[in-house]
Amino acid sequence: MPHNAEIISVGTELLLGNILNTDAQFLCQELSALGINVYYQTVVGDNPERLAKAVELAKSRADILITTGGLGPTCDDLTKQTLARAFGKELVFDEESAQRIREYFEKRLHSAKMPENNLQQAMMPEGCRILRNDWGTAPGCIFRAEGCHVVMLPGPPSECRPMFLERVRPYLQALSGETIISRSLRVFGMGESAVEQLFRERMNEMENPTLAPYAKIGEVELRLTAKAADEAAARALIAPAEAEVRAKLGDMVYGADVASIEAVAFAALRERGLTFGCAESCTGGLIAKRMTDLPGASAVFKGGLVTYCNEMKEALLGVPHHLLEEKGAVSREVAEAMAQGARRALGCDLAVATTGVAGPDADDRGNPVGLVYIALAAANGVFSRETSLGLSRDRVRTSAAHHAFDMLRRYLAGLPLEIKPVF
Amino acid sequence: MPHNAEIISVGTELLLGNILNTDAQFLCQELSALGINVYYQTVVGDNPERLAKAVELAKSRADILITTGGLGPTCDDLTKQTLARAFGKELVFDEESAQRIREYFEKRLHSAKMPENNLQQAMMPEGCRILRNDWGTAPGCIFRAEGCHVVMLPGPPSECRPMFLERVRPYLQALSGETIISRSLRVFGMGESAVEQLFRERMNEMENPTLAPYAKIGEVELRLTAKAADEAAARALIAPAEAEVRAKLGDMVYGADVASIEAVAFAALRERGLTFGCAESCTGGLIAKRMTDLPGASAVFKGGLVTYCNEMKEALLGVPHHLLEEKGAVSREVAEAMAQGARRALGCDLAVATTGVAGPDADDRGNPVGLVYIALAAANGVFSRETSLGLSRDRVRTSAAHHAFDMLRRYLAGLPLEIKPVF
Repeated sequence: MPHNAEIISVGTELLLGNILNTDAQFLCQELSALGINVYYQTVVGDNPERLAKAVELAKSRADILITTGGLGPTCDDLTKQTLARAFGKELVFDEESAQRIREYFEKRLHSAKMPENNLQQAMMPEGCRILRNDWGTAPGCIFRAEGCHVVMLPGPPSECRPMFLERVRPYLQALSGETIISRSLRVFGMGESAVEQLFRERMNEMENPTLAPYAKIGEVELRLTAKAADEAAARALIAPAEAEVRAKLGDMVYGADVASIEAVAFAALRERGLTFGCAESCTGGLIAKRMTDLPGASAVFKGGLVTYCNEMKEALLGVPHHLLEEKGAVSREVAEAMAQGARRALGCDLAVATTGVAGPDADDRGNPVGLVYIALAAANGVFSRETSLGLSRDRVRTSAAHHAFDMLRRYLAGLPLEIKPVF
Repeated sequence: MPHNAEIISVGTELLLGNILNTDAQFLCQELSALGINVYYQTVVGDNPERLAKAVELAKSRADILITTGGLGPTCDDLTKQTLARAFGKELVFDEESAQRIREYFEKRLHSAKMPENNLQQAMMPEGCRILRNDWGTAPGCIFRAEGCHVVMLPGPPSECRPMFLERVRPYLQALSGETIISRSLRVFGMGESAVEQLFRERMNEMENPTLAPYAKIGEVELRLTAKAADEAAARALIAPAEAEVRAKLGDMVYGADVASIEAVAFAALRERGLTFGCAESCTGGLIAKRMTDLPGASAVFKGGLVTYCNEMKEALLGVPHHLLEEKGAVSREVAEAMAQGARRALGCDLAVATTGVAGPDADDRGNPVGLVYIALAAANGVFSRETSLGLSRDRVRTSAAHHAFDMLRRYLAGLPLEIKPVF
């Protein structure tokens, strides 16, 4: 039986716009991956009457009810009290939860004086399954009543996410008696609408696994989700579908279940024992920033030179003056000279460079916003790409950095450096 | 009479978790600033029956109903059709809207062939006020029926935001017959909970203007909101409250109604005709990236050197080998030598430098995660700050970049370079 879930996010801070409801997006993604429909998602403030109304409505139309927030002492444990009452349950003291809360204060906060109202968090709906919170103080819980599975999770995303993944997801999977596995294919070099067009028919046909595209900044994620009796059977369903997607998109698929394109490039550098550096004009430090977002980057990353004026392109990278005069800073020749200069100055095995027009205005030579050259210098030569990235300053810069990492990972994998169009 | 609004976000992509509901946060913030309460916010998919149910409920409990999304041809103009029906209105063809849609295709998309289903967007509820969309194709609208003000906005944030600010906000302000003005004071150097503690009592007492804190990454925003008969009167109410906040926080307030701390530093550099550069270790390009996020940065920014290994600190910045040996890369002395080296290498008036432990692990000398030194080199000397930024890699790096811009803007304003604690 397909389940249908409803999410109620509790918190006045959400209705004041103080925080963004990332929990709701996360839960919607996860429930969708589990094959559970979500028809409504509601936000209510820290108000027992309004929360009770939202709960009454939700239980009349959903068989899984998930709440986030409203646990813990600052809100008088609003959610647990209201949901227990709505389903005719008492709250009872749970000594194990109380002990964990005391320990949290002692060990994590080095505070012997725990405010007494924290123990209120140990009052749990009778007969519930307690969801231990290893990431904060307020435990969550699950109970079943009136044909509805009721799940309560804490609001902070750093608690809500791991609690869902480690405690609730297995519970929901067990409901269906099936194992659900997702595999995320990451695609660079094609827009979301083009990917959607390419797979539209197949997405409609496919039932197990399902195929769904997600637009990310500068790239597209294609997610395959399969249900089966066990993990091996689910993976066996995914394998041919993955092969089908890869056959269509070729080397535009830069990885499966990976964190980012820079993480793929970083792993390849590490594996090959090669060092990396960059020279940036229009991306202005973004490539270096993204590489150093990764813990352990220092193992491969030697440094970066942000040369935001012609003078520095000459002084730091040794770009010949005549090239800048004749071809202009935004040119294939200058991009290549920058990459070679960075490789020399930083003493690294591989160097990338960017030069282009990020906007908002065309440059003084009339080059349009979005024209960007990306180059890669290696021991066996220098390679470059011309792109027309259009759109906003932010998008131009993000896409240009993506292109640089794409050239890098292609070089390291021995793939052609140019993106081959599918259509 | 205080108004009470309800937001309905329409879109299956929201319930699948494909996109984050930033429109809802934006509208909640704006409505709150207008003194309008929001008690519920609901998300429904592209489904007429479920949307109709959500609308029935919302109109029974709110006097302002705002929808986002579900306009335009891809969803068969679901929202307009459903809301018109719910309030007993016909849809009628609006020639002016049709003309604008045709022009949009011709001029913006350089496409003579407009798919005919686009003209469906020109069908508007009878007697409504049409909200012209200068940022996309689907117009919005407002009508009043059954004691409720009904507002429909397009879903893409790049359309929803300007439509609200330019078309809906004035309408809602006129409802109350009052002018509402907000002023945002940006604070660096104090955590959110400390700011809240400092102002808690006053926040509870104050009615007009109100004072509310918003946590931002690495800093805090304090927003003053006043209502009065006209703008001048509202500003006159804000002025003494702003003076009171500034008297308490002193030079930790780095700006009012400004975009960011880097924008403040950039404006000061521009005004003084000075150039800027940076040398980055733990921030790894983030300072350069943030400076070049600003359009026109090339007027002041000469470049940046990301020296992620000791070798490059010596080669590119001329940091003495013995300093790195004796004091270690993470030291006040090295930070200062980096800033001076960057100033020399980049030939700029002012240079900042960062060196520290971003984590996840302590460095090889046992320096803890979060220990960061930030230095500023100028014609009259070199200055530095030691900070212990704790927390995650991302937070350490963001805060370190904030510190660098804070030192820069303080230097340019002739303020003390150190943050003076308030307590």
